Amino acid sequence: MRTSIATVSLSGSLTEKLTAASRAGFDGVEIFENDLLASPLTPEEIRGRCADLGLTIDLYQPMRDIEAVPSDEFGRNLRRARHKFELMRRLGADTVLVCSSVHPLAVDDDALAAYHLRQLADLAQDFGIRVAYEALAWGRHVSTYDHAWRIVEAADHPALGTCLDSFHILSRGSEPKSLEGIADIPGEKIFFLQLADAPLLAMDVLQWSRHYRCFPGQGGFDVADLVRRVLQTGYDGPLSLEVFNDVFRQAEAGPTAVDAHRSLLVLQDAVGVSTPPAPVVPTGVAFAELVTPDAEPISALLGALGFTRTARHRSKPVDLWQQGEARVLVNTAGAARRDGTGLAAIGLESPDPAAAARRAEALLAPVLPRRRALEDAPLDAVEAPDGTELFFCATDRPELPNWRTDFTDVGHESGTPGVMGIDHLALVQPWHHFDEATLFHRSVLGLHAQESVDVADPYGLMRSRAVTNADGSVRIALSVGAAPTDDTVHAQHIALATDDVVGAARRFREAGGRVLPIPGNYYDDLAARYEFADGELETYRELGILYDRDPHGEFRHCYTVTVGRVFFELVQRDGYRGYGAQNAPVRLAAQHAGRPVR
Amino acid sequence: MRTSIATVSLSGSLTEKLTAASRAGFDGVEIFENDLLASPLTPEEIRGRCADLGLTIDLYQPMRDIEAVPSDEFGRNLRRARHKFELMRRLGADTVLVCSSVHPLAVDDDALAAYHLRQLADLAQDFGIRVAYEALAWGRHVSTYDHAWRIVEAADHPALGTCLDSFHILSRGSEPKSLEGIADIPGEKIFFLQLADAPLLAMDVLQWSRHYRCFPGQGGFDVADLVRRVLQTGYDGPLSLEVFNDVFRQAEAGPTAVDAHRSLLVLQDAVGVSTPPAPVVPTGVAFAELVTPDAEPISALLGALGFTRTARHRSKPVDLWQQGEARVLVNTAGAARRDGTGLAAIGLESPDPAAAARRAEALLAPVLPRRRALEDAPLDAVEAPDGTELFFCATDRPELPNWRTDFTDVGHESGTPGVMGIDHLALVQPWHHFDEATLFHRSVLGLHAQESVDVADPYGLMRSRAVTNADGSVRIALSVGAAPTDDTVHAQHIALATDDVVGAARRFREAGGRVLPIPGNYYDDLAARYEFADGELETYRELGILYDRDPHGEFRHCYTVTVGRVFFELVQRDGYRGYGAQNAPVRLAAQHAGRPVR
Repeated sequence: MRTSIATVSLSGSLTEKLTAASRAGFDGVEIFENDLLASPLTPEEIRGRCADLGLTIDLYQPMRDIEAVPSDEFGRNLRRARHKFELMRRLGADTVLVCSSVHPLAVDDDALAAYHLRQLADLAQDFGIRVAYEALAWGRHVSTYDHAWRIVEAADHPALGTCLDSFHILSRGSEPKSLEGIADIPGEKIFFLQLADAPLLAMDVLQWSRHYRCFPGQGGFDVADLVRRVLQTGYDGPLSLEVFNDVFRQAEAGPTAVDAHRSLLVLQDAVGVSTPPAPVVPTGVAFAELVTPDAEPISALLGALGFTRTARHRSKPVDLWQQGEARVLVNTAGAARRDGTGLAAIGLESPDPAAAARRAEALLAPVLPRRRALEDAPLDAVEAPDGTELFFCATDRPELPNWRTDFTDVGHESGTPGVMGIDHLALVQPWHHFDEATLFHRSVLGLHAQESVDVADPYGLMRSRAVTNADGSVRIALSVGAAPTDDTVHAQHIALATDDVVGAARRFREAGGRVLPIPGNYYDDLAARYEFADGELETYRELGILYDRDPHGEFRHCYTVTVGRVFFELVQRDGYRGYGAQNAPVRLAAQHAGRPVR
Repeated sequence: MRTSIATVSLSGSLTEKLTAASRAGFDGVEIFENDLLASPLTPEEIRGRCADLGLTIDLYQPMRDIEAVPSDEFGRNLRRARHKFELMRRLGADTVLVCSSVHPLAVDDDALAAYHLRQLADLAQDFGIRVAYEALAWGRHVSTYDHAWRIVEAADHPALGTCLDSFHILSRGSEPKSLEGIADIPGEKIFFLQLADAPLLAMDVLQWSRHYRCFPGQGGFDVADLVRRVLQTGYDGPLSLEVFNDVFRQAEAGPTAVDAHRSLLVLQDAVGVSTPPAPVVPTGVAFAELVTPDAEPISALLGALGFTRTARHRSKPVDLWQQGEARVLVNTAGAARRDGTGLAAIGLESPDPAAAARRAEALLAPVLPRRRALEDAPLDAVEAPDGTELFFCATDRPELPNWRTDFTDVGHESGTPGVMGIDHLALVQPWHHFDEATLFHRSVLGLHAQESVDVADPYGLMRSRAVTNADGSVRIALSVGAAPTDDTVHAQHIALATDDVVGAARRFREAGGRVLPIPGNYYDDLAARYEFADGELETYRELGILYDRDPHGEFRHCYTVTVGRVFFELVQRDGYRGYGAQNAPVRLAAQHAGRPVR
């Protein structure tokens, strides 16, 4: 189906918005009136710009407070409409959105509303324009889609149809019964379909709509169900996004447009009108790759954690450090994308790497050129929204290229590893791009998103949300600050799984490793909340181990100090399913306290 | 009365919070448990730090889910309480807050709740501690202050009282009837009074409480009425602020603490328990002062606007430019506080400058040393939260020192001025400090705050709110971006009043001035919305004049291009009361478009 986006959904000037929409692959746009008013381009220039960018102008919007008003007011409205229809002719737009009136003088009179809309449609027809009438959820007298449709039906004019908007419909409830009326509307009378999702918030619907809408799949509405119902009527216009969101208004238009278009691709997949390659859910973490200008500090840290440098890349300055199933690459190549020491890439174990990359590419993930991947074995890789490179790997599976064969062995692990593998990776997202990251990991990788939680950092709230596969062998914890943050404090981290965190922490310390110091008050609180075996709490206190429990089990974990923009966590989860969010404020405070004074 | 603040109200580490509270003049603090847990200081060290800072610890908070739970759970609660009471003894805190239970297993049984609280109070008494029981607005079975009081009354224990919280009470409605029950509580059984205001939002009360509380006077609650009622019971504990606010969590603790303490000073004034000097409402704008490293561009702009350089300061590199009652000082002193060209100070005409300064000082406005004021005539000046210097002036009033006498005449205005005076000053506030700025201008200057409005900048929503005196001779428009903004785009501005904006704009252009260009689409829209006299709209289009109207009159205005971080507006308000918010998105887009490409 054709895809479209309202310019109000994106940040910037009108030309920035149009460019972003085109680059992200949209077929058309809705021109939001205020964006046109503020643009120095004439309507003809905007029309030309859209044509150059391969965009149709699918809707001009909105016209407000048209119908069921006193007759002198309606006279002024027709005059205004004529101006707008002339503008639309210059613009090359043939459909206009009319929202149900919120005018203080509007009367509750469907016949008058129909009469007025018929007159408007008569005028529109002279300009070759169609009028799409939509019920605002907070319309003064018309606030439901079926009410708007009854008025359109009564007006009975070929240039008048209805516009359905998922927010206005689903914000009023989504009981199947309330949606049944959609089937009564002939598809050809649905002139437009606007789509938005929203988190399920208990708040005034106007504020909810104006500030918190998001793209389908990012909120709590069943937008796919609504779209299925609309498609069953025979509707064949575009799927068009209209999203008012305070964060998207500030975020760079380019990534937001890609995120937006991705949401429509996923939606079309869900409703069955397109079939991108199916997701190939990763089955494990093959490796985490750190880039650093100086391998020494990170090598010392890995050594103290019990890792052994087992191999070196044949042709690049990349070391493989291993312990159990945990593999960490340390890359000192000059071309390292980021400055300082940081987590640059994740190798995901994939049942079918090529298919995983096809899915990613179909959902607009930038595919990385092979030359940027590890060279020898062909490795499929894409870039996540935060810039992290995701490699789809097949480790030691004879039928598939093996990244491991690019490495020459230089050592062997000795003894029993204290670390069994990578428990999870924690990625701090760029400000403004949290919803985008969640949708990316869900749709591109086929991971499941858990609930979003608030975490109190001493300098502002953070949001955190984990995405995981079914058996928990891939867990990624996404987080974001309430403002641009210091990424040496809000750093990425690699959590290592152990079945004996006390032993692992002790060996780490004995090997010269520095554990993040945890305040004594924290342990006094643990003593108040839980009963521990003799000496247990003292051990935790000594080693900086934190403790939590949930209905499924206990959680013990500790953190290393930060090197550059990355740190490690040792975690022992005996059935526990969370990530220690309860302890995160204490951890964050300790990390702030440990940061170099500016 | 004693003033106190909960550490959760401020940003940073516990020690940063304590320092900020002390510096702002608070007498005590509530220690929020999570702040203590995350602090590396021992309880004894915290106690010592507070003592050094002159702060008492008035409350330890909160204890949750204590009462009306199954007996094994209550057993664990008593064990936990004992630990906390031991901690409080180390801390030197003698009152603990207990919130009404939200535990899923809590039962609706007041007798059991009273029984449990009595047992808790028994234990507390052994430690010399008092228990203050508070109804959370979302408590599972106890959600109103009178219900909590009935349970406390039934428990009848000397170490058990109630805690009243303005948010929990007023968020449930403020009909006088619902507050009458306060009079039934003996003052000595009100162990604590927590105060917070909040904007009147229609949303889930838990989310409202956790993210949107603000300081008294910044929201929509009648906190003063509640405090009066509580004081009438004989309550003589502290007035203590407990504010959960996402913005304050991020803002620097120092200014927030000052803002907080100011709110309590104003509140005490309102309820009559203290009498700071009365506000002296300014009666006009004496001058606006620009600082600049290079007077040339701003002098050229002022000249084109019709200003004449009429005087020069006797001893400083400060020129006075005048037109009608509009006076602009151009200061090229090396010690200019800010870099680049910007608005540094405002002279406010004051009926009693010394009294105005006393009011400001009493409300914690930093008084500027005389040597920083214009030298010769003694000028009282304070600093606004955004760093703007406010001078309290008496221009040409024989009985008072006159700043004007420090200037030597160098020229005379010729002809009829096009500009009559300063209509308003627009001050962009630092991110995070909007509520603070509003409270400052209201309380320190005695101005009236109008409604806050959202304005769509192309790169994010802005908020704007005007503060004015009764006759509109002093108008200050405060605004703030949704994120740190570019202050060469979101610049301060000086709006000049004219009764002929067309003539003023034309003369400005003819004198070589550059008006901010406004898109043609804007004028096409005006043509659709309003009917104009022949040629009127074409004139506006030619001169870049914007148009708005409200029920009181018409508004015509245009903008100069920006110099450094300041620009001018010419406004003709024929009865109109607003500030052209309708046109602000177009103006902001034009300013972004005109900014140098980075």
